[in-house]
Amino acid sequence: MNKGRIKWGMLGGGQGAFIGIAHRIAAYMGERYELVGGAFDVDYDRGVAFAKALELDTDRVYASVEALIKEENKLPKSERMEVVSIVTPNFLHYPMAKSLLEGGFHVICEKPMTMTAAEAEELQELVQQTDRHFCLTHTYTGYPMVRQMKTMIADGEIGEIQRVDVQYYQGWINPFIHEKEKRKSVWRLDPAKSGVSCCMGDIGLHAFNLAEYTTGLQVDRLLSDLNYLYEDNNLDVDGTVLIRMGKAKGVIRSSQIATGEENNLTIQVYGKDGGLKWCQEHPTVLTLLKEGKPLQVFKPGNPYNAQLTMDSTKMAPGHPEGIFDAMGNIYKGMAKAIREEQAFEGEYPTVQDGVRGMQFIEKVVQSNRDGNVWINL
Amino acid sequence: MNKGRIKWGMLGGGQGAFIGIAHRIAAYMGERYELVGGAFDVDYDRGVAFAKALELDTDRVYASVEALIKEENKLPKSERMEVVSIVTPNFLHYPMAKSLLEGGFHVICEKPMTMTAAEAEELQELVQQTDRHFCLTHTYTGYPMVRQMKTMIADGEIGEIQRVDVQYYQGWINPFIHEKEKRKSVWRLDPAKSGVSCCMGDIGLHAFNLAEYTTGLQVDRLLSDLNYLYEDNNLDVDGTVLIRMGKAKGVIRSSQIATGEENNLTIQVYGKDGGLKWCQEHPTVLTLLKEGKPLQVFKPGNPYNAQLTMDSTKMAPGHPEGIFDAMGNIYKGMAKAIREEQAFEGEYPTVQDGVRGMQFIEKVVQSNRDGNVWINL
Amino acid sequence: MNKGRIKWGMLGGGQGAFIGIAHRIAAYMGERYELVGGAFDVDYDRGVAFAKALELDTDRVYASVEALIKEENKLPKSERMEVVSIVTPNFLHYPMAKSLLEGGFHVICEKPMTMTAAEAEELQELVQQTDRHFCLTHTYTGYPMVRQMKTMIADGEIGEIQRVDVQYYQGWINPFIHEKEKRKSVWRLDPAKSGVSCCMGDIGLHAFNLAEYTTGLQVDRLLSDLNYLYEDNNLDVDGTVLIRMGKAKGVIRSSQIATGEENNLTIQVYGKDGGLKWCQEHPTVLTLLKEGKPLQVFKPGNPYNAQLTMDSTKMAPGHPEGIFDAMGNIYKGMAKAIREEQAFEGEYPTVQDGVRGMQFIEKVVQSNRDGNVWINL
Amino acid sequence: MNKGRIKWGMLGGGQGAFIGIAHRIAAYMGERYELVGGAFDVDYDRGVAFAKALELDTDRVYASVEALIKEENKLPKSERMEVVSIVTPNFLHYPMAKSLLEGGFHVICEKPMTMTAAEAEELQELVQQTDRHFCLTHTYTGYPMVRQMKTMIADGEIGEIQRVDVQYYQGWINPFIHEKEKRKSVWRLDPAKSGVSCCMGDIGLHAFNLAEYTTGLQVDRLLSDLNYLYEDNNLDVDGTVLIRMGKAKGVIRSSQIATGEENNLTIQVYGKDGGLKWCQEHPTVLTLLKEGKPLQVFKPGNPYNAQLTMDSTKMAPGHPEGIFDAMGNIYKGMAKAIREEQAFEGEYPTVQDGVRGMQFIEKVVQSNRDGNVWINL
Repeated sequence: MNKGRIKWGMLGGGQGAFIGIAHRIAAYMGERYELVGGAFDVDYDRGVAFAKALELDTDRVYASVEALIKEENKLPKSERMEVVSIVTPNFLHYPMAKSLLEGGFHVICEKPMTMTAAEAEELQELVQQTDRHFCLTHTYTGYPMVRQMKTMIADGEIGEIQRVDVQYYQGWINPFIHEKEKRKSVWRLDPAKSGVSCCMGDIGLHAFNLAEYTTGLQVDRLLSDLNYLYEDNNLDVDGTVLIRMGKAKGVIRSSQIATGEENNLTIQVYGKDGGLKWCQEHPTVLTLLKEGKPLQVFKPGNPYNAQLTMDSTKMAPGHPEGIFDAMGNIYKGMAKAIREEQAFEGEYPTVQDGVRGMQFIEKVVQSNRDGNVWINL
Repeated sequence: MNKGRIKWGMLGGGQGAFIGIAHRIAAYMGERYELVGGAFDVDYDRGVAFAKALELDTDRVYASVEALIKEENKLPKSERMEVVSIVTPNFLHYPMAKSLLEGGFHVICEKPMTMTAAEAEELQELVQQTDRHFCLTHTYTGYPMVRQMKTMIADGEIGEIQRVDVQYYQGWINPFIHEKEKRKSVWRLDPAKSGVSCCMGDIGLHAFNLAEYTTGLQVDRLLSDLNYLYEDNNLDVDGTVLIRMGKAKGVIRSSQIATGEENNLTIQVYGKDGGLKWCQEHPTVLTLLKEGKPLQVFKPGNPYNAQLTMDSTKMAPGHPEGIFDAMGNIYKGMAKAIREEQAFEGEYPTVQDGVRGMQFIEKVVQSNRDGNVWINL
Repeated sequence: MNKGRIKWGMLGGGQGAFIGIAHRIAAYMGERYELVGGAFDVDYDRGVAFAKALELDTDRVYASVEALIKEENKLPKSERMEVVSIVTPNFLHYPMAKSLLEGGFHVICEKPMTMTAAEAEELQELVQQTDRHFCLTHTYTGYPMVRQMKTMIADGEIGEIQRVDVQYYQGWINPFIHEKEKRKSVWRLDPAKSGVSCCMGDIGLHAFNLAEYTTGLQVDRLLSDLNYLYEDNNLDVDGTVLIRMGKAKGVIRSSQIATGEENNLTIQVYGKDGGLKWCQEHPTVLTLLKEGKPLQVFKPGNPYNAQLTMDSTKMAPGHPEGIFDAMGNIYKGMAKAIREEQAFEGEYPTVQDGVRGMQFIEKVVQSNRDGNVWINL
Repeated sequence: MNKGRIKWGMLGGGQGAFIGIAHRIAAYMGERYELVGGAFDVDYDRGVAFAKALELDTDRVYASVEALIKEENKLPKSERMEVVSIVTPNFLHYPMAKSLLEGGFHVICEKPMTMTAAEAEELQELVQQTDRHFCLTHTYTGYPMVRQMKTMIADGEIGEIQRVDVQYYQGWINPFIHEKEKRKSVWRLDPAKSGVSCCMGDIGLHAFNLAEYTTGLQVDRLLSDLNYLYEDNNLDVDGTVLIRMGKAKGVIRSSQIATGEENNLTIQVYGKDGGLKWCQEHPTVLTLLKEGKPLQVFKPGNPYNAQLTMDSTKMAPGHPEGIFDAMGNIYKGMAKAIREEQAFEGEYPTVQDGVRGMQFIEKVVQSNRDGNVWINL
């Protein structure tokens, strides 16, 4: 096994790509990754220019994932890229991840993991076969107080769960959705690029993931009601999903036409012995509700938190960490896996989360198409 | 027509009844009602004692609604009770309201208005026939910022409505629900006293009413998913209802097992041109969301508010008014109606709201029983 | 001693007077007072018209406090007014209170109690001599969570106090202060009507009162820095006061030119073992801070509260009560005193609070005038 | 002038130093700095080990600032360190900064800049003489909404300023202050390491800096009241400072014994035409108050913000950035200065801010010692 900084590459994420910045900052934060190359841009020359700006070795800028795999594998093991992050458009996730795994690389992949559940299941099998690590960047699971919520629920703090309610509201599609011409400028509304769902595939998926991550339960049945707003619009922009998680009932609510909302992801979980609430736009606040007791507000960095929570914060209490820090925590978890160190349960999302997510998207669309009926997941 | 203070009576609301206190304070606030008598208690003597404590004329304490009607109608018109508030258990609302209307009295009635939709429709007809005023005390519609929300939506501030989301979460049934013996102590869990629904009939109803009140739209279809938690529990304690309001889609979420929640009624409405959010536990805050603009927070007492809002506040900005003041605003609206003064649209809920509400409850239970299917309302 | 409803009168508070409404609602709430008459208006005829609107006996409308005292004392004791509320402009508080006490009446008085500390001390002596009850309506001490804060501090929850910080910010004078002509329309800026101070006398006083009420400590030294904004403006509109309360140090901050603020009264008290924070604009929230523990949020109506707190709430948790309810709690405390029932410590502010307050105002003005120096209180 | 990544070194910040992590992450974020070496640790061998862990060239680990200057200056200009960050204990800031400036290096320095105002003034002169760039890491000025506040005030949004109020409350010294033995474990309470002040020098300084940064005004007079809590404690742990900023009056409140507070830095500024409020623990919220208008809440990433604000955010609205991002924004501003690019006014704090700050600390201590008197600044 290698030691020291993990040699790391990227697919996509070149000049002007916000998501590339997020991944690089996340990787830099823990000082455990070294960016050595990648295929940053569909335009090879632009990729080279980008690498120069970052002062990377331009020999390790590649025109394709295939070239990357071929050339990197020629390098001695100690210099070779060990893990590659895929931050390209959605439809490229699956083929790239497949090639990388088969080529012997660990993979960090943006969500949604694939375009279909079948592809996701294939990747899952491949991960097992190749014995590679696979990290899916469900960023919100990297927030300390989300991890605290997960831990407290696992520890029985709120008892058997009775109700789960997750909301993910944004408004950004509203300016585009009402005119057919304007819709064309939004790739997420194009099935060829986005898959079978827009709103549910993009953000409903996060809500679903957060529900399963924090509760430790699985959604086993669902009934969805999607809103396309216009008949000639091909993908959902809003929807509500009734869910069953074992004995618990709940609801996932998601919208991209909640006009004026920015990134309002909120989760409320209630059990026999208490409730827990968290909201992404104020991520340092976790509220615990108990019958007949004052509300309790948990905040990061305080030693009353679980070890995983403490390990997900870099500063003293009262110094807010944000979305980049959350992503950084996920990269940190993956680094531990790659270096075969002891990681915490749930320190980074895996290919299993990706399979669950893709199944969720497909079932949600199917339930709605079939007339808002229950479907097993 | 009479002048001066409105002669007012009560059915129920005697010693120790919290709801009676709420109605009396509401009536006192505007200095437009004078409590002259009533049938305060099933135990006549206790009712008399109660009247003495309030220094009322004990001649006008009655053993029954029938006695009240008979005796009051013997008095000269200028002294006679003009309006009677019904604050008894649910199953008495309908027969009492019926008798009062037929006896020539205006009626103020607690919700739910009746036990069945059929009874509600009968009352609606009777109100028309008798030309009496009927006020249903959906208290939350009395809050200034709820009225502001209604007015802003009616004025087109957020444009055509796209998504409606109302939550009403409480946790108070949790301590009782898990043991059959304990359940018996909760009358709301007894179909004989509560009707066909517990959670939806009690608080889901408020959420429904608020959705229709603020948007000015009607719920025309619904699909519900109720939670009884135990097979041997007869009434729902939690549920989610998918709704359609014309072209808008939405959801009503309600629970009495959201452990630790007190009275968390929250409404979010999003339209083409903006969104509006309000929460009952912080009732002085109304948030307006607009694409590409800072959030705006509206607060009571400020002249930028609509006239109905201004008329629903007694103090300068920054002096919080609460639930009693909201109820007082409804009593004030009803007083205007009784005295045939110009009232604002929506200044008090009417028998029509009661009919809508009872239909809602029945359809919600039916949809769930039939397997979570769509039903027209 | 009398029984039943307390016969109650008012000086001032006639047609259009907001403060009169607040006092009447407060009195009605507990159903312990009966308004029987008063001198409602400097214009006698307008006072009579007002009494008619309230359906009072116009024989008991008086042209002056002297007439009231003389005539009421002719009535049999069981019918006679027992207590009188003074809600006139500030300069009338002292002579009216004096006459009433000497005339044998209990007194409820708006703040500031007098125009000078000397007058206040005189009233204090008179209260003792006459053995009458005297209630000063420092409304904010009537909020349940303020009372909870007082009780928790008294119980040692936060240990010995180290720092006290009270803020009272409003912005309402800003539109008037910048032009000499406009200032004339504001009676609070006129020393003849307002006394030696505007901002400190009106609202700084509340902040001071809250500091002493909640901590149980007395301000024994102060150093003030007032802001008159313009040389030709006679009274302060803003200021900061350094305070000492025994070993604790602190600060009172008050402004009427904090543009855009409504009624932002906030108190923070920190002791060796914790801190407590409360804000008037969200009065149902009391936050307890403890080293190394999650924040705790106390809310009204929950049985974990102290008995005085519980007794200051009429509804179940989650049903917000507001400023009228706070005033109602003070009237309730005074009613207990008048009827010689067991009241809680601190259930209504007394003439002692008034003396403290008037001394505070005078010392604050003196400290500033003398060049921001320390003065004993 | 050099191009590409800025060659960057550190003094201090080795293994286990939190502040070192903050600076490195800040430098990594913008991808403009390359850490090439430094004197990371007083223990040279530990510094080397640390460098190895970061995979740095151990030839460029130095035993002292002198060695660093000497050796780096032997390197060709294109390889040589260009800027050095000083993150050592306070008393080393001045001598190190002096040597670095004289040695030809740009300097990034933690606050407080020096131990005395005289040292600070000397550095200021030296910066001019050497024509080097000097960045003082007052982190809070890097938050987007602080920058937005500064810009809005400069643009006249709230008019001429009337009142300034800054609070910085922490509770972390409380567990140590009450026992003499425990105090010894806190270096900030040791004058030899901390200088003339603990609380004011550490966090009151930030409050002062924020007041001047956001308003564009200077504190020209002050009167302070410090709290040492015990006679045998040498440095302040709490205090209040009355301030004058031209015609505006205000107050700085600071405490390290506000038990239970984490890092509660809050600023409120009120002008003739409005007010602005911001709180560090929820840094994405900036509230604008205007007479007679709804509150407005500004949030990062929205195009309605000023260009400097937009340039200080990396993500779309609703994705919270935190304290590391704020520090990153300051490093970004310094990078622009080093590379002689167009920077925004106020994009990083300079040696002038350091001089102001050191004068503030000295005057605050002097005012208190002289009996809480006014002192010019």
